[in-house]
Amino acid sequence: MNSLHERIAASFNAQGLMSTLGARLVLVQDGEVHIELPFSSHLTQQQGFVHAGAITSIVDNACGYAALTKSAPGSEVVTAEFKTNFMRPAIGERFVAVGKVQSAGRMLTVCSGEVRAYSGAGPDYKVVALMQATMVSVPANA
Amino acid sequence: MNSLHERIAASFNAQGLMSTLGARLVLVQDGEVHIELPFSSHLTQQQGFVHAGAITSIVDNACGYAALTKSAPGSEVVTAEFKTNFMRPAIGERFVAVGKVQSAGRMLTVCSGEVRAYSGAGPDYKVVALMQATMVSVPANA
Amino acid sequence: MNSLHERIAASFNAQGLMSTLGARLVLVQDGEVHIELPFSSHLTQQQGFVHAGAITSIVDNACGYAALTKSAPGSEVVTAEFKTNFMRPAIGERFVAVGKVQSAGRMLTVCSGEVRAYSGAGPDYKVVALMQATMVSVPANA
Amino acid sequence: MNSLHERIAASFNAQGLMSTLGARLVLVQDGEVHIELPFSSHLTQQQGFVHAGAITSIVDNACGYAALTKSAPGSEVVTAEFKTNFMRPAIGERFVAVGKVQSAGRMLTVCSGEVRAYSGAGPDYKVVALMQATMVSVPANA
Repeated sequence: MNSLHERIAASFNAQGLMSTLGARLVLVQDGEVHIELPFSSHLTQQQGFVHAGAITSIVDNACGYAALTKSAPGSEVVTAEFKTNFMRPAIGERFVAVGKVQSAGRMLTVCSGEVRAYSGAGPDYKVVALMQATMVSVPANA
Repeated sequence: MNSLHERIAASFNAQGLMSTLGARLVLVQDGEVHIELPFSSHLTQQQGFVHAGAITSIVDNACGYAALTKSAPGSEVVTAEFKTNFMRPAIGERFVAVGKVQSAGRMLTVCSGEVRAYSGAGPDYKVVALMQATMVSVPANA
Repeated sequence: MNSLHERIAASFNAQGLMSTLGARLVLVQDGEVHIELPFSSHLTQQQGFVHAGAITSIVDNACGYAALTKSAPGSEVVTAEFKTNFMRPAIGERFVAVGKVQSAGRMLTVCSGEVRAYSGAGPDYKVVALMQATMVSVPANA
Repeated sequence: MNSLHERIAASFNAQGLMSTLGARLVLVQDGEVHIELPFSSHLTQQQGFVHAGAITSIVDNACGYAALTKSAPGSEVVTAEFKTNFMRPAIGERFVAVGKVQSAGRMLTVCSGEVRAYSGAGPDYKVVALMQATMVSVPANA
């Protein structure tokens, strides 16, 4: 674990929602972050699949933390806006949200994200959601 | 409570995520649905405000159920996509997501939503998020 | 015509695209701008309706100029991003894009827009498109 | 030129707007379409760069025609909605919009697009805009 990972993990662990959902930070590298969410009946919509809101929560975070890897020390990243397409039902045993920086500005960072659904132990997955997001750098609280 | 409310409530209560977040269905009328979420430290992002993912979850649902009030009996509504702007930090004691149908088609319904933050017992609120969403009608499972 | 209108009109008239499309600035007030586009076969998509790109061009401008009415003198507004839903074919004799500021920040302004299609001289219209946009204030060139 | 290219070109050439903007269809393959737009002062916004509306018009078309390459013969594709981020000013001698299918359904197809700005004859470009779009298949007119 490097200092970039530590910085992101400290912020991730301070998020009540990630713990409530059962999400885990699994990869941090320059411009890219992965967050994993195991299936749970606590996360479902009315048909028993994972709710779009839970899927969005992890990919929003993956994008936000990807942006944070590119931002100046002492700054914080918040979401200005995002757009998510849901391409198929979120069916799977676990989900991995991948967030990547597409363009990093001083103020605004554009990221793209996807959420991959895995069933079983194999490497195959289906992309269930695509995100395009705008993150904004703000000074961290003193 | 009318039959439209009952139909929506049955679906809402079948969603594991709404119970996990602590959200409540508070208004159902033709083309408009309200969902309330009290503040909880289980819902926060790293600064202690409510996470964009929790805010999105309730306004996605408010929009989806608003669309469902316009759909044929025996059909289900799922989210094709949405876009959300976060205009200020989600600070408040409770949040009310308001979803409204803007255009109802046979297949696709376009909705707009907003999330209002309330502090104290008064009627004043601040809009913390705006959503524009596309919902799609699908046949309900037999 | 007031000075706010003059400021917006000067910028509008400097846009080559608006003249190419045949668009006209028809209303400027604090936080709201209207732009009109008459139908022309120069603007069509493959079915003969007005192209989504032309519709988007005028509502993007209506939103951007609505944001400019709220920005400091000497600043310029550019589009960070927008999202547009097309609710029905853009059929009509003329189209009016209405852009409104929803939340004006120092840096980012969130606007909503709609495009109304008119046929004949009457006041009735159909909303053919809805936009939700983020505008960013930048210093004007010296 | 194959029959897929011919089918797309016939539709492209029926669009008044593409000719008005000066856009050209330059590549059609299964699930991917490129459209080129040379710089012209007829396309500008108030600072002299290419207008977001012109940029959006070509990438909307690139996405729509990419979707059409995946759709059944006798069907038409129209835009349900799109979202575009503008990452830097559209400065260049020519712009190439690249649209790709991400997920093709019977009814809805999700595409991603980007617009590349070129200056000079070299292969280097800068991505000025990113789109995420939902296209809908409709029966072609008889």
